[in-house]
Amino acid sequence: MTRWKITIEYNGRDYHGFQIQPDVDTIQGAIERAMSQFCQQDIGIVVAGRTDAGVHARGQIAHFDLDYKYKNGQPRDIDAFTLIRAINANLMPQPISIVDAQIVDPKFHARFQAKQKHYMYRIINRPYALSLDQGLAWWVKPALNIQAMEKSAQYLIGEHDFSTFRDSKCQAQSPIRSVDEITLETHDILNGQEIFIHVRGRAFLHHMVRNIAGSLSMVGEGKWQVEDMLTALNAKDRTHGGPTAPSDGLYLQSINYI
Amino acid sequence: MTRWKITIEYNGRDYHGFQIQPDVDTIQGAIERAMSQFCQQDIGIVVAGRTDAGVHARGQIAHFDLDYKYKNGQPRDIDAFTLIRAINANLMPQPISIVDAQIVDPKFHARFQAKQKHYMYRIINRPYALSLDQGLAWWVKPALNIQAMEKSAQYLIGEHDFSTFRDSKCQAQSPIRSVDEITLETHDILNGQEIFIHVRGRAFLHHMVRNIAGSLSMVGEGKWQVEDMLTALNAKDRTHGGPTAPSDGLYLQSINYI
Repeated sequence: MTRWKITIEYNGRDYHGFQIQPDVDTIQGAIERAMSQFCQQDIGIVVAGRTDAGVHARGQIAHFDLDYKYKNGQPRDIDAFTLIRAINANLMPQPISIVDAQIVDPKFHARFQAKQKHYMYRIINRPYALSLDQGLAWWVKPALNIQAMEKSAQYLIGEHDFSTFRDSKCQAQSPIRSVDEITLETHDILNGQEIFIHVRGRAFLHHMVRNIAGSLSMVGEGKWQVEDMLTALNAKDRTHGGPTAPSDGLYLQSINYI
Repeated sequence: MTRWKITIEYNGRDYHGFQIQPDVDTIQGAIERAMSQFCQQDIGIVVAGRTDAGVHARGQIAHFDLDYKYKNGQPRDIDAFTLIRAINANLMPQPISIVDAQIVDPKFHARFQAKQKHYMYRIINRPYALSLDQGLAWWVKPALNIQAMEKSAQYLIGEHDFSTFRDSKCQAQSPIRSVDEITLETHDILNGQEIFIHVRGRAFLHHMVRNIAGSLSMVGEGKWQVEDMLTALNAKDRTHGGPTAPSDGLYLQSINYI
């Protein structure tokens, strides 16, 4: 039995989230089906961070145990490249791809040992509806004040009660979370401006990054003053937060284990 | 009667090209339908460069004449922003968007007066199948030698007989074209490398940019030597060219009129 750690990239647009559910398309369901097709056994994967419907990833992490055998029952070796190629061949043409695989210690746990997650929220800021980036970014029409957004983001750094940015369906026991970093990156692109909001922390509440992105957009549009972010945080009440930004713009970029 | 010049962005993946055809989805068909819905008259648009099925644009140009009126027949003014918003509202949720509109001289002609077109061909170079970029880039598996590609591209600059890079269905009278510039731009991205091939010239033969991209990939993969590009060009014979790169990676970026 070998424990593998895999890195997964996916376009979540047409999926009902990561976690397997009956009768709907999920990322986990697609990967487990592709795996069973290649190794002729049922494999269950354990994921680091379940993403919601419509959310994307470039660095989702999962682990699984594989007891790869020949038909006669003899143990069979497989290297990372062959494993990736075999799973991806069975995933095509679905927009899900394994981009790394490593043999890890049998005690490695993708979820419990994750030290830091990096989420990126992508906004395209322009007056014209999106075409090429539909489903891959949030379209924000009014010109955003990036400096004001950056200033207001500083209030969220550190350990806080994030109840204001927590979905009512969140099942976490505590609303206390620690945000290590929020940075904004902007690029002029043909026909508009692209804004990446990078958020790093050990763990997040349900919809927390999207609720932070939605609240930052309120500051960027001038509907909130910079200090209103602090007032919202201190209210510890979801009704004082900004809107939940759509799933289209959210990407799980990477997860650190050290 | 007012002549308008518009700039159009689109994801061509699910369209049978720009030019209107019966019974299939085309970019032109979608735009003309959206226009007639907003101004209640049939409008025909004249496009600068008809793109093939699956090809994208961030800067396609077209012109049309609009005789905008109130219901009682009185002439009605409309500004560019309102025109764009009205057409885009009728285009949604199709992945086609008007990103600029200007009133131009009644003698302006989108096709005949185009001085230079800028096409960009996008490659994602990595061993793993594409997920987020499916339909938006060409997936090339073997690691490409960018320097060799850049060197071989130099043979194509200037005025030449481009028969080697011309589709057999091309209806142009002459195979002589002038390429002003071919440059390569590379970026390290999460899980791979992104390569943009920028090609600029007044006009191109059918599939010429895709055939150039396919031939450059032969050099990048080491299947061709740098000088083989010159040999291919001098052969003036399509059978001596590289493969036609897929439509997924081709973007019409911009068109200059001055």
